[in-house]
Amino acid sequence: MNGSTFGNIFRLTTFGESHGPALGGVIDGCPAGLAISEAAIQKELDARRPGRDGLDGLASTARREPDVAKILSGVFEGVSTGAPIGFCIENTSQRSTDYAPLAHVFRPGHADISWHMKYDGHRDYRGGGRASARETVSRVVGGAIAQQLLAVHGVRLQAFTVELGGIPVRPPFMVAEETLPFFAPNEDILPEWEETVRAARAAGDTLGGVVQVEAYGVPCGLGEPVFGKLDAMIAGAFMGVGAVKGVEIGAGFAAARMTGSRNNDPLTPKGFASNNAGGILGGVSTGAPIVARAAIKPIPSIALPQETIDENGEACTISIGGRHDCSAIPRVVPVLKAMLALVLADALLMQKRMA
Amino acid sequence: MNGSTFGNIFRLTTFGESHGPALGGVIDGCPAGLAISEAAIQKELDARRPGRDGLDGLASTARREPDVAKILSGVFEGVSTGAPIGFCIENTSQRSTDYAPLAHVFRPGHADISWHMKYDGHRDYRGGGRASARETVSRVVGGAIAQQLLAVHGVRLQAFTVELGGIPVRPPFMVAEETLPFFAPNEDILPEWEETVRAARAAGDTLGGVVQVEAYGVPCGLGEPVFGKLDAMIAGAFMGVGAVKGVEIGAGFAAARMTGSRNNDPLTPKGFASNNAGGILGGVSTGAPIVARAAIKPIPSIALPQETIDENGEACTISIGGRHDCSAIPRVVPVLKAMLALVLADALLMQKRMA
Amino acid sequence: MNGSTFGNIFRLTTFGESHGPALGGVIDGCPAGLAISEAAIQKELDARRPGRDGLDGLASTARREPDVAKILSGVFEGVSTGAPIGFCIENTSQRSTDYAPLAHVFRPGHADISWHMKYDGHRDYRGGGRASARETVSRVVGGAIAQQLLAVHGVRLQAFTVELGGIPVRPPFMVAEETLPFFAPNEDILPEWEETVRAARAAGDTLGGVVQVEAYGVPCGLGEPVFGKLDAMIAGAFMGVGAVKGVEIGAGFAAARMTGSRNNDPLTPKGFASNNAGGILGGVSTGAPIVARAAIKPIPSIALPQETIDENGEACTISIGGRHDCSAIPRVVPVLKAMLALVLADALLMQKRMA
Amino acid sequence: MNGSTFGNIFRLTTFGESHGPALGGVIDGCPAGLAISEAAIQKELDARRPGRDGLDGLASTARREPDVAKILSGVFEGVSTGAPIGFCIENTSQRSTDYAPLAHVFRPGHADISWHMKYDGHRDYRGGGRASARETVSRVVGGAIAQQLLAVHGVRLQAFTVELGGIPVRPPFMVAEETLPFFAPNEDILPEWEETVRAARAAGDTLGGVVQVEAYGVPCGLGEPVFGKLDAMIAGAFMGVGAVKGVEIGAGFAAARMTGSRNNDPLTPKGFASNNAGGILGGVSTGAPIVARAAIKPIPSIALPQETIDENGEACTISIGGRHDCSAIPRVVPVLKAMLALVLADALLMQKRMA
Repeated sequence: MNGSTFGNIFRLTTFGESHGPALGGVIDGCPAGLAISEAAIQKELDARRPGRDGLDGLASTARREPDVAKILSGVFEGVSTGAPIGFCIENTSQRSTDYAPLAHVFRPGHADISWHMKYDGHRDYRGGGRASARETVSRVVGGAIAQQLLAVHGVRLQAFTVELGGIPVRPPFMVAEETLPFFAPNEDILPEWEETVRAARAAGDTLGGVVQVEAYGVPCGLGEPVFGKLDAMIAGAFMGVGAVKGVEIGAGFAAARMTGSRNNDPLTPKGFASNNAGGILGGVSTGAPIVARAAIKPIPSIALPQETIDENGEACTISIGGRHDCSAIPRVVPVLKAMLALVLADALLMQKRMA
Repeated sequence: MNGSTFGNIFRLTTFGESHGPALGGVIDGCPAGLAISEAAIQKELDARRPGRDGLDGLASTARREPDVAKILSGVFEGVSTGAPIGFCIENTSQRSTDYAPLAHVFRPGHADISWHMKYDGHRDYRGGGRASARETVSRVVGGAIAQQLLAVHGVRLQAFTVELGGIPVRPPFMVAEETLPFFAPNEDILPEWEETVRAARAAGDTLGGVVQVEAYGVPCGLGEPVFGKLDAMIAGAFMGVGAVKGVEIGAGFAAARMTGSRNNDPLTPKGFASNNAGGILGGVSTGAPIVARAAIKPIPSIALPQETIDENGEACTISIGGRHDCSAIPRVVPVLKAMLALVLADALLMQKRMA
Repeated sequence: MNGSTFGNIFRLTTFGESHGPALGGVIDGCPAGLAISEAAIQKELDARRPGRDGLDGLASTARREPDVAKILSGVFEGVSTGAPIGFCIENTSQRSTDYAPLAHVFRPGHADISWHMKYDGHRDYRGGGRASARETVSRVVGGAIAQQLLAVHGVRLQAFTVELGGIPVRPPFMVAEETLPFFAPNEDILPEWEETVRAARAAGDTLGGVVQVEAYGVPCGLGEPVFGKLDAMIAGAFMGVGAVKGVEIGAGFAAARMTGSRNNDPLTPKGFASNNAGGILGGVSTGAPIVARAAIKPIPSIALPQETIDENGEACTISIGGRHDCSAIPRVVPVLKAMLALVLADALLMQKRMA
Repeated sequence: MNGSTFGNIFRLTTFGESHGPALGGVIDGCPAGLAISEAAIQKELDARRPGRDGLDGLASTARREPDVAKILSGVFEGVSTGAPIGFCIENTSQRSTDYAPLAHVFRPGHADISWHMKYDGHRDYRGGGRASARETVSRVVGGAIAQQLLAVHGVRLQAFTVELGGIPVRPPFMVAEETLPFFAPNEDILPEWEETVRAARAAGDTLGGVVQVEAYGVPCGLGEPVFGKLDAMIAGAFMGVGAVKGVEIGAGFAAARMTGSRNNDPLTPKGFASNNAGGILGGVSTGAPIVARAAIKPIPSIALPQETIDENGEACTISIGGRHDCSAIPRVVPVLKAMLALVLADALLMQKRMA
C-alpha cells in the first residue's frame, strides 16, 4: 500500500532508481512448478530497451544498457519453487553529472516538484531517481514471468501503438509479431509516424500517443466485484505507468456517445457478436478478448526553453539536454503489456481458489 | 482484495444486493474526533436518488426509496471515536417479481453471464443482485464521510456532467451549487439534453455521457509511487463504478495529441500556469486542482428487443421492462464524487504518517 | 490493517460497541455455493452467551441477550452467492447508566487508559465500547460460517478448557460434545473448578485459565512462508482476543525444555508417531491435528477496591460493580474456536489457488 | 499475504534461500529523511552470525559468512529518500553437496514434509532452501533499519536469553550491553548453560530455550483494535520465526494462574505500579515497557539416528551431519529483536497518521 507492491496473490514488489546501483524486485505468489525461461524475460526487457524502434533510436534515449535480470531466488533447476522470486538489474550506464544542473530546479511536467514536497526535499534528483521511467524494467520482469504463467493457462497478450503524435493508425491490425518499429500494427503507417517524429525532434519537442493492449484466451470469471473489478485493476495498472493520462476499456469514451442498443454486445450461442465491452462485463471477464488502451502524454523533457521555478520558488528558465526519448512510445508498449499480464495473473490466481 | 473493500487506511467495506434485506458497510480508519453530520450524508444519498433530475425522473428509474443510512457504531455523541463506523440502508421497495422472467436469461451488456460463470451459477438474479447499481448507496455513504474528513483539511469536491448522449456542454462551468438537472454545469445546455433524453426514452433506448469530478485545496504530496500513484487510485476507483468505460486525468486523451511544449504546465512563482496535468505529476498531487473524467456507457437495460442466450446457451430474445434509468447520468455523478473523496481521504491519511 | 479486518481471502470485517445500536460485520471471500445454516451460527452464538456454564451463570455476567445474527446479504435461497455476507446483531440489553461513574476513571487492567490516549480522549466508555468483549459476537458469527466451509473440506474443530484458576484438568480429554460446564473436557474436574470459582466470586475477585483448541482433518500444505506461517496466523488470531496473554502451538513452552531427540516427532509410513509440533512444521500444516492453547488472564473488572487514576491523572479508588463475568472462561472458548476456524478457512482458500 | 511481506506501512518483503545466489529484501514505507547507518545494520547482522557465543561457536553452525548487506536503492547521500530500500546479502559459503543425501528424505522436525506437500514436490532441498533459518538475515536487516527509525522516536530495544536447555536465569537482568555469551542477562548463569550445551552436543542432541525482548520508550497508543492489536502483531511476528512454539506478553501464562486483584497493574499518578500487562492493554501500548517472550524449540537437526520416511513414504533412518547449531539460541535473539522492531515501527507509523 506504500506504492511499491502490485497485486494480491501474484504480487510484485519493486525497488530501484535511475542512477543507483541496481533496480529489482520480488515476485511473491508465483505457483510452484512453473518453468521459468530467462530468455523470455530477456526478450521483454529487450523490447523495452532504447534503439529498438527501427529508426536508429530516433525516438529513444541514447542511454544504452544491457538490462539483464539476474534471478536470485525462487527458481531451482529452472522451475519455480513457490518461494519468492528475487531479481535485480544492475545500472551500468549512469552519467549522473548530466543531472547536476537540475538538482535544484523543477522540470515542468516531471515529478520533481510533487516528490520534492512529498518527501520534504529528500530526493535522488539524478535522472529522476525513483520517478524515472527506468523503474519500469522491474515491471517488465514481473510481467514476463506473469506471461509465462498465463501461457500455461492458454492466455496470450499483444500490444501495439494505435496513435502517435496525433496520427492514428488505420486497420488492419496485424500484430502477432510485434517486430515493426514503434510496435506499429501494420507497415503502412510507418512513413507518417517517422516523419512526425523527425519533425518533433528537429523542433526540440516531444510527442505522445495511444497504445492498445489485448489479451486472448482469458477465461470467464476473472475480477472481483465491486472494488476489485478486472477493468478497475487494469485502469489502475495502466494509469500508474509514468506518462499515462487516460485509460479505456473496449469502446471506451466512444461508448459514452452510443445508444444502449448500439453499445450492447449481443450474445449468441457462438459467443458475443461484438466486443464493445472489451471482454469485461460487471467487472468480470466474459471470455471475449480483453481490449484496453492508454493515452500517453508527450515526454516532458524537451530541448526547448521552458519557464519554471527552483527549490526556492524563484523563476528561471531551463532547456533539458541529456539523453531523452522523443516519445514514450515505443518503449512504454512492453511496459503496458507487462501491467496487463500482472493484472491477469493475479486475477487468475484469485479466481482459482474459488474452483 | 476480494473486491468488497476499498482503501488502505480510510477503508470502506460494503455489502448488499438490490433486493436483499439491506445494504451497508463499514468504514474503518476514520480518525477519532471528526464531527459526523448525518444530514450531510443524507444530502449525498438524496443526490443519488432517482427523480432528482428536474425532469420528473425522466432519466431515472421509477423505484423510489428513502435511502436513509443508519449508523450502527463508531460515532458517540456525534463524534467519531476511531472505532469502525458500521452503517446500513434498508431496502424497502423491492418488487422482485419483475425479475422472475430474467432468472435464466443473460441480459446483454449486464454482468449476468460473467457473474454466472464466475460463481458457478449461484447468483441473486433479482435486479442484478450484487451487480446492481444499487450497491453504490454504500459508496455514497462512505464518500460522504470522507468528504467531511477532507473538509476539515480544506479540501472541497464538485462533480458535474460534461457530456450527455454525445452532446458536450460548453463553458462556462459554474458548478458550485450542484442543483441543476443532470448536474449540468450551466443552464444553457439543458434544453438540448432534455430533448435527447426524451427522444432516447421514446425510442426505448438509453444514453451515455461523460462526468467530470474536481477537487480543490488538495495538499501537495498525496499519492504513493510507483503502484499507488494518486492518478492510478483514481482511475481504479472510477473504472470500478458500474457503467464506466474510460477515465482521464487532466487533459487525458487530448494530451496524447499535444507536443511536450504545449502539454507541459509551466511553473511560476505563483503556481502552475495551466493544468493539463490535472493536479498530479509523477502520481503525486501538486496542489493544483485535481481534475478527472469518466466515460459512462449507456444503460444496458433497454426496452428494444435484443438477441441473447439463456443459461443453457439457447438463443432467445428479450425486451427489458421494469423500472430502469434512461442514463446512468445524473445518478452516477455523486457516486463518482464519492469515489474521488474516498481516494483522497485515504491518500491524505497515508501521507500524514510521513510528517 | 486498521484492525477491524481479519484474513486475506476469507475475510471478516467487524464493527460495533457494547452499548451501541448493533454489532455486526461483513464476510468477504466466502466461496459461492456453500449452504449456510443459520441454526449452526446460532449454536455458536449460544455457546458464547452467559449463563451457559451449568452453574446458573456463576462465572458469567448477568447481561442476557438473545444474540441473534441477522444475515443481510450474500446468501440467496440458503446458499452463498460469492457476494459479501453482511450481518448484524442488535444490542437489546444496554444498561448504560451503570457506566456513568466510570466515564472519567481508568479501570486497571482495561483498555481505558491506552484507548483514551490513542484516540485523544474520544471513547465510548459505556461497557468498554469497542474494547468490550462483546465485540466477539461478530467473530463468532464469522467463525461459524468458516466452520461450515471447513466442514465441507473435512475439517472439524473442538475447543475446551484445560486449566481454570490455576487448576489444570487431567486426562482423558473427551470433548466431542462441548456440553459440559466450563467446556471442560471431562466431568471429574468440575467440582474443583466450581469450588474455585465460588471462592473467587465470594472474594470479589476473578480468575484466569488456559483453553485448548484443536482441528482435525486439516489438509497438509496450509500456511504461507515466511511471515504468513500457519502458526504465526494462529498466534496473532488468539493473542488478539481480549484477555489472552500467551499462545502455544503443540508442546509450546514445554518444547523449550526438551532435547531435540525428544521433541522431534518421528515420521512413519502411517504418519507422525507423536505431535509435539501441533500439526505444523515450518509454518505449514502437516496433516496431523492442529493443537493450540491460549492463556487467559483473570477478568480485570473486580469488586475489590483498586487504586487507579482519572483522566486528569488524579489518584482515586474504584470498586467495579455492574454485570461482569468472574472469568473469561467459558465464554472465550467458542471465540477462540472461531478464530482458529477463520485462520484455517483463509489458509485453505489461499492454498487452493495453488492447486 | 503470500507470506513474504511483513507489516503495513513500514513493510518488509524478503526473498532468498540458504544455498541460492543471494538473499535480500525491500523495505517500503521508511519515511524520507532518516539517516541510515550501515554500521548499525552490520552490528545486528554480526550479532546473528555463528561463532558469537563466546564458546568458540560451541552452540553454533560452522558455516561462516561475512553476511554483508548491500543497499541497492532508497538511500541517497546516507539518508532515506522515501523510495523503497532494496538490499541483498550474497551467499558465499554454500556447501550444497552436504545435502544431496537428504534430497529425498524428510528430516523430522523440519519443514521438509509440509513444504514438499504444499509445493507439489518442488523444493530447493539444499540446507532447507527457503525454510532455512538463513532467511532471517533479511529480517535482521529490516529490523536494524526499523530500530534506527524507532531510535529517532526515543524507542530502544533489548533482547536476552532467560532460559536455555531448561535452565532459567535468575535476576538481576543487566542486559544493556548484549555482549555476554548466549545473550545472557548476567554472567552468573554462564557456567551452567555452557555445561548443558557441551553435554547436549556430546550426546549428538540439541537444546531449546526462552528469549525475552523488551522495548523502552514506546509511546502510548500503538496498536489497532480489534484484529491489529499490538500484542497480536507481536505474537504473530514471533511465532513466525523458525523455531518458536510459544509466545507470552507480560506475565503470559503466569497471568492465567493469578487472580484479577493480583494481575491488574494499579495505576498511579506516577505510572503503573507493576507491569503484568507487558506494556499493552486492550491491544494498545500503555507507555510502560513492552515485554514479550518466545519459547524456542530444540534444533531438529540432530546427530542421533532418527526414524523417518522418504518421498515415497518408505521408512528409513537418518543421522544429520553437516554444519548445524546445537541451539537456535543465541542466534535467534537478534532475530526476535528485529521482529519486535518491525512491529513497533509499523505501529508507530500507523498511529502517526492519526495525530
